[in-house]
Amino acid sequence: MSKIIALLTDFGTEDIYDGVMKGVIKSISPDATLIDITHSIAPQHVRQAAFALLNSYRYFPNGTIFMVVVDPGVGTARLPIAVQAGNYIFVAPDNGVLAYALANFSDKRIYEIASTEYRLPMVSNTFHGRDIFSPAVAHLANGVPIDKLGPELGDIIQLPTPELTIQENQIDGEVMHIDRFGNIITSIGELHWIDPHRLVLSPVFGDTKSNVPIESTHARIIVGDTEIFGIRVSYAESVRGDLLALVGSSSYLEIAVNQGNAAQRLNVAVGDRVQISIGEFDATVRD
Amino acid sequence: MSKIIALLTDFGTEDIYDGVMKGVIKSISPDATLIDITHSIAPQHVRQAAFALLNSYRYFPNGTIFMVVVDPGVGTARLPIAVQAGNYIFVAPDNGVLAYALANFSDKRIYEIASTEYRLPMVSNTFHGRDIFSPAVAHLANGVPIDKLGPELGDIIQLPTPELTIQENQIDGEVMHIDRFGNIITSIGELHWIDPHRLVLSPVFGDTKSNVPIESTHARIIVGDTEIFGIRVSYAESVRGDLLALVGSSSYLEIAVNQGNAAQRLNVAVGDRVQISIGEFDATVRD
Amino acid sequence: MSKIIALLTDFGTEDIYDGVMKGVIKSISPDATLIDITHSIAPQHVRQAAFALLNSYRYFPNGTIFMVVVDPGVGTARLPIAVQAGNYIFVAPDNGVLAYALANFSDKRIYEIASTEYRLPMVSNTFHGRDIFSPAVAHLANGVPIDKLGPELGDIIQLPTPELTIQENQIDGEVMHIDRFGNIITSIGELHWIDPHRLVLSPVFGDTKSNVPIESTHARIIVGDTEIFGIRVSYAESVRGDLLALVGSSSYLEIAVNQGNAAQRLNVAVGDRVQISIGEFDATVRD
Repeated sequence: MSKIIALLTDFGTEDIYDGVMKGVIKSISPDATLIDITHSIAPQHVRQAAFALLNSYRYFPNGTIFMVVVDPGVGTARLPIAVQAGNYIFVAPDNGVLAYALANFSDKRIYEIASTEYRLPMVSNTFHGRDIFSPAVAHLANGVPIDKLGPELGDIIQLPTPELTIQENQIDGEVMHIDRFGNIITSIGELHWIDPHRLVLSPVFGDTKSNVPIESTHARIIVGDTEIFGIRVSYAESVRGDLLALVGSSSYLEIAVNQGNAAQRLNVAVGDRVQISIGEFDATVRD
Repeated sequence: MSKIIALLTDFGTEDIYDGVMKGVIKSISPDATLIDITHSIAPQHVRQAAFALLNSYRYFPNGTIFMVVVDPGVGTARLPIAVQAGNYIFVAPDNGVLAYALANFSDKRIYEIASTEYRLPMVSNTFHGRDIFSPAVAHLANGVPIDKLGPELGDIIQLPTPELTIQENQIDGEVMHIDRFGNIITSIGELHWIDPHRLVLSPVFGDTKSNVPIESTHARIIVGDTEIFGIRVSYAESVRGDLLALVGSSSYLEIAVNQGNAAQRLNVAVGDRVQISIGEFDATVRD
Repeated sequence: MSKIIALLTDFGTEDIYDGVMKGVIKSISPDATLIDITHSIAPQHVRQAAFALLNSYRYFPNGTIFMVVVDPGVGTARLPIAVQAGNYIFVAPDNGVLAYALANFSDKRIYEIASTEYRLPMVSNTFHGRDIFSPAVAHLANGVPIDKLGPELGDIIQLPTPELTIQENQIDGEVMHIDRFGNIITSIGELHWIDPHRLVLSPVFGDTKSNVPIESTHARIIVGDTEIFGIRVSYAESVRGDLLALVGSSSYLEIAVNQGNAAQRLNVAVGDRVQISIGEFDATVRD
């Protein structure tokens, strides 16, 4: 069966880079199916790519090979790696870009991509996406065993963990991503509804791994100069133009404007602090 | 034979959303072929998507399944639907986004996507593109009969019809779309040349369904503060920098600048009025 | 085996144009595999497309059919052509867009796409990408012999050659492209390292075809008001924020900022002059 290769990079689609990588892959593995997760990671923004991979990989079929190339250290000593994790393979520079996703796997094996046999004959110093990573995923799609690529490594490089601090009556997080709609996606997750007024927080990041209950109507969200009272179940609890907090599609706390752009309205950027404080106000009254 | 699933959404390609939907589709239907019409519909702009679908669907092969997700009402009571129309299937939220295209089909059958069997196990309140629409198109591509998805419905939600008013010596329309080149695409169509100086208008929108003849050299086009005399057969009748009116590739009246950007030059936006008035001037003299 | 059709256009992905072309291609050739090189060539910028094609085609497998549509003359007398060159086929308007790539092939055969049999039944005056070029590549992918498309032509239209003038101790070029990262890609190439301090220039453009040696530490690069001393082997010889000259992934002289945007910092645009002068300074001291 045809293998899926899923691409997540900062190469954009304005230049020839992603097309050339696809040409290289199809030259080696004509039957591979290529799917773009996105090529629009902010240039060299390793953490944005790590967060995007964390929130997307699980929707791909078993056997998918992920090629994740956000590579500010291209041409330096950082290693190219391939990682078998569960039923997936992840191929990337070893700069932390796989760290958030791989934290979910206990059974991973990590290999350096060292064999010149599985690279292009000429390797540039500036475009390993084309010269090293694309040939590697193509050969893996062709069935080359991952341990043929090079020596096994002990662990991958880690990334600093996003802010997620849980205290009694206060949760501190940060803005992780602003999407096309202007929705503000935070590090506070995973949040799951257990009844119409109560959520439980199972922290993705940070040390605390216990489940933290939150009364949705007692939650005050603070981001920049703005307070939002309550966490809503869906947009249906708001009208056009309303600012609201809700649980986004990847189960993080998200701040949105119904049919509008929250990031522009609040002038919020990636990295800004977000806080939930729990108190004795009632969102249904205050808001 | 592999089914084609054509995607038309406002999810952009900057985020993981379209990649995740493709992962879901390929997880369920590994053989489906995915084609992007565009993901760059203006956020939540249902009418822009309806117009884009109207002008693109007929170029796809019989059997194509269209997934059209522009969904400002996600999480509200609006229904997800699947429509068999001719040899095509259209899957979308029932918010009017299919209205313009489906007006061309008399033999349509409309179904609610209600069966939980053909959804993801967990359905979020904010991303039905991933949780409901992608699984639906994938199962349809696998051959699931459309009437297994849910109960048949009587009709779809309609959209307000674009302005297209035809009087003697005057046609009123509106700007429907500004494309990448700055070409101004109007609601005045379909226009077809019957000889080198005469067009016939077969209205796409509005009640009038008769064919209206137009002498191209007697047509004065008014948009904003600008008058354009005559409708040209092609760019070949102009030189670089000329402002001209012509029949665009989807057979609507289009205002363009030869190798330039008409929308910027005229400061025109979607929704602006456009008028053709027919009079006793001669474009070959005046222009 | 499934044929690859690689697309290089200025149609963008914001509109329906590229999706419609893919619908047309798949309607005629269901088994063709479509790969986007890019659709983001600046509108009607033939030379940018010619340069993009030159630097991408060789990474695609034998048998690939390239559809290159940047077509300011659509609707004029310029011919649509199909060219067999080596193991590739190139389909494009005959406006020079193929000129840089085809200069690498001695064994080419050029055909006008004239037969109405291999077009859509209705051909518009504004969108030959859909009506002529897409059907042509689809029929070629289906195995239609290229000489069935129309009469053989003597030669293609040429493009002005980019600046590349080589004198003793001075090389003059120009800025060809600014990429997503702000890297400034010049016409000075191909450059290849022969030892850690010496490059050889094998001119892509211009008459001179001899190999010109360059001592990397004796090279002073001048672009706008800025001087850069030395050509670096890789980013590893710089730290974050450094401005540097190096050999880019397509073997042209490239000016970059380590993890930054060189074009913005230097305020450089496509078409600006670039000069290498060779002198008795030492980059390791001066920089």
